[in-house]
Amino acid sequence: LRDGDTQGVYDLVEPLHPADTADLLELIEEVDRANLAAAITDLMTPEVVAELNDHVRELMMEELAPADVATITEQMDTDDAVQLLEDLDEADRQAIIDELEPETQAAVESALSYPEETAGRLMNRHVMAVPEHLTVGDLIDYLRDEGDLEHDFYEVFVVDASHHPVGTCALNWILTTPRAIKLTDVMKRDQTLIPVTTDQEEVALMFQKYALISAAVVDESGRLVGQMTVDDVVHIISEEAGEDALLLSGAGDGDINEPIREAYSSRVRWLVANLGTAVVASAIIAFFGAAIEELVALAVLMPIVASIGGNAGTQTMAVAVRAIATNQLTRANTWRIVWRELRVALLNGATIAVLIGIAAGVLFSPEMGAVIALAMVVNIAISGLAGVLVPVAFERMGQDPAVASSVFVTMITDSMGFFAFLGLAVAAGLAPL
Amino acid sequence: LRDGDTQGVYDLVEPLHPADTADLLELIEEVDRANLAAAITDLMTPEVVAELNDHVRELMMEELAPADVATITEQMDTDDAVQLLEDLDEADRQAIIDELEPETQAAVESALSYPEETAGRLMNRHVMAVPEHLTVGDLIDYLRDEGDLEHDFYEVFVVDASHHPVGTCALNWILTTPRAIKLTDVMKRDQTLIPVTTDQEEVALMFQKYALISAAVVDESGRLVGQMTVDDVVHIISEEAGEDALLLSGAGDGDINEPIREAYSSRVRWLVANLGTAVVASAIIAFFGAAIEELVALAVLMPIVASIGGNAGTQTMAVAVRAIATNQLTRANTWRIVWRELRVALLNGATIAVLIGIAAGVLFSPEMGAVIALAMVVNIAISGLAGVLVPVAFERMGQDPAVASSVFVTMITDSMGFFAFLGLAVAAGLAPL
Repeated sequence: LRDGDTQGVYDLVEPLHPADTADLLELIEEVDRANLAAAITDLMTPEVVAELNDHVRELMMEELAPADVATITEQMDTDDAVQLLEDLDEADRQAIIDELEPETQAAVESALSYPEETAGRLMNRHVMAVPEHLTVGDLIDYLRDEGDLEHDFYEVFVVDASHHPVGTCALNWILTTPRAIKLTDVMKRDQTLIPVTTDQEEVALMFQKYALISAAVVDESGRLVGQMTVDDVVHIISEEAGEDALLLSGAGDGDINEPIREAYSSRVRWLVANLGTAVVASAIIAFFGAAIEELVALAVLMPIVASIGGNAGTQTMAVAVRAIATNQLTRANTWRIVWRELRVALLNGATIAVLIGIAAGVLFSPEMGAVIALAMVVNIAISGLAGVLVPVAFERMGQDPAVASSVFVTMITDSMGFFAFLGLAVAAGLAPL
Repeated sequence: LRDGDTQGVYDLVEPLHPADTADLLELIEEVDRANLAAAITDLMTPEVVAELNDHVRELMMEELAPADVATITEQMDTDDAVQLLEDLDEADRQAIIDELEPETQAAVESALSYPEETAGRLMNRHVMAVPEHLTVGDLIDYLRDEGDLEHDFYEVFVVDASHHPVGTCALNWILTTPRAIKLTDVMKRDQTLIPVTTDQEEVALMFQKYALISAAVVDESGRLVGQMTVDDVVHIISEEAGEDALLLSGAGDGDINEPIREAYSSRVRWLVANLGTAVVASAIIAFFGAAIEELVALAVLMPIVASIGGNAGTQTMAVAVRAIATNQLTRANTWRIVWRELRVALLNGATIAVLIGIAAGVLFSPEMGAVIALAMVVNIAISGLAGVLVPVAFERMGQDPAVASSVFVTMITDSMGFFAFLGLAVAAGLAPL
């Protein structure tokens, strides 16, 4: 590519699947992307653009004229088009929307009128909806006449005269049923309907739970306005589930294609918050300054208590956050789970206490061994409780437990670790206050 | 339920979707589960059992006679049946397999012959495979005669005489095409084939990348032996993506339904490993014992350096592990990403250094402010590098980076944090060695 051999590059990229072409664009360095895109202009299909990583797509779109972006948008499914547009600046977005055909314009504007990450924003507006009086034969004839091979669909939604969904037919049921049978006799009446305002996380859970391939999206008055299909939901599931690890660590979006400035600003916020909690822990240590001066072994051992407590808290917190995200931890079983985690924590605490107690007893003194062992049990038990109770509390306050739990749990485990250890050492008469 | 009002319970559960009934069984306490199951015997359909959490299902199945479990297994799809059986003890499993009908027995044994978490184990053996000479009309007639409404399918696989797949037809293409057209003219020849030995993580990535609804599974000689459908893959995606947060925290399986003993043993292992790394950090502190005795401010401030370094390392590690899991971080762009993370780390380090430097400068002394600021930059930069390089190294050695990275990154950030801070303090002449 750098040698200017555009024909050679073209021949290499040509046989690739659009998703692979998109991957290639993401993998190469930023400076090469525009050149590669120029070399393979007619391979830069809407499918490739739809498959690109958000950040990479945004960068590439910013370099194109609004009219060119509009041409690409025109050929995409409405849901992909909306995804492309929603990331752009207000001004760029409006310039592109102005260039669109009236029909696409209306669809895009309607989608953008719903909040981000809701079904109304994410749904596909192409739905196969048919009236309820049809027979299987009528439907097949209708589909053959329409001959819309462009949009994939996996089920046919049966609607009444006012466009309310009354049932749904999987395509395999239609194919295995004689022509004369009425659709209302094959269709399933009991379908999962998604209101336009449903959050994407909720949509993903519905698809997982009921093993859906597609589902009807209905507006406030219950009319069919679009559908969500599993291939889009798969991305949401992967995003939502993977997000927790990133949120828990305070890494924000956590995408390696995110511009450095954004990565910096999302991460530094948590480091500053962490600085605040670390200061609390330091204050506790300062309070016991005289004890440490007298017995430097305390300074040597205290990071162990905090570190293990932090780890135990993180374990429980990861379990609790995941259980909340998958709707497994609810009001109905909170106390059972808290009790379960406390028992696990006590077992862990006892094990670690024995190990560290013996080691510290041999290296320092039996009293020191006893103090650190007891501090360890206390700290791991507190960490276990904090690991469940903090995420549960955030959830009940309507906050995402993955976002802020870490800072609080760390603060609790660090401060309690130092306090338990240094406090017990003073109480045991090992050091003065 | 506890009042013995089984009819009342039955009436409450009866209208629920099988997935909701399964959720209910998971939510109630262990002691009540058997009673509830007894109260709703004929609602305990194979669908309900298939939807149950692994651990809950295992507990419930262990209480039933092999013949009863066999009856349930018989009615499940082979993939669900295999999932139920693979979790049981060797002996229990064999007892149940012996009770199965010969056909199911063969299918289950063939599935169990593949390693866990591979396509061969997870695939559904019911596939709609048709010979290549059919027309669309022939196919529809064939499907109507067969009338297999029991198994859902989303595409028809076209195979040659030796059962090798040659193409695939989405059902909506068949429905929108005139009867006289040959299948070979509508089908897509370029399909994604999954070898039986493919790991489930790889399968999930293929489904996501190519937006598949179902895909053919082929054996070593390329013959069609089964299919994977997206509803099963959705569970794998959610599991694999959610797993990382749990693995990174050392929480193992991390399922709140896991028996306490298992949760204890998987977590305590990491706490013991963490104890080992904490001891390394303690040894470094002990080495600087004289300095701390002289200047207790060092003991007060040192946990801040370690804590923030640990947090910065965890952020980068979470990003790197996620990027590796989604195939976004590969050999082709490793150095670009390392360089990116180093720049983010230096920005973060500079920001935190200014804040803590000023605070320590005011509270203790300007020299102490300078020392901790410099230590912070060094430690955050090292943490950033360790956060990428450790997971990448594990990946290259063929290990799952999510499993063991945490322990190593923590060890590096803790030890380097203490060493940089205490070492710089001694070098600056603030304290003796």
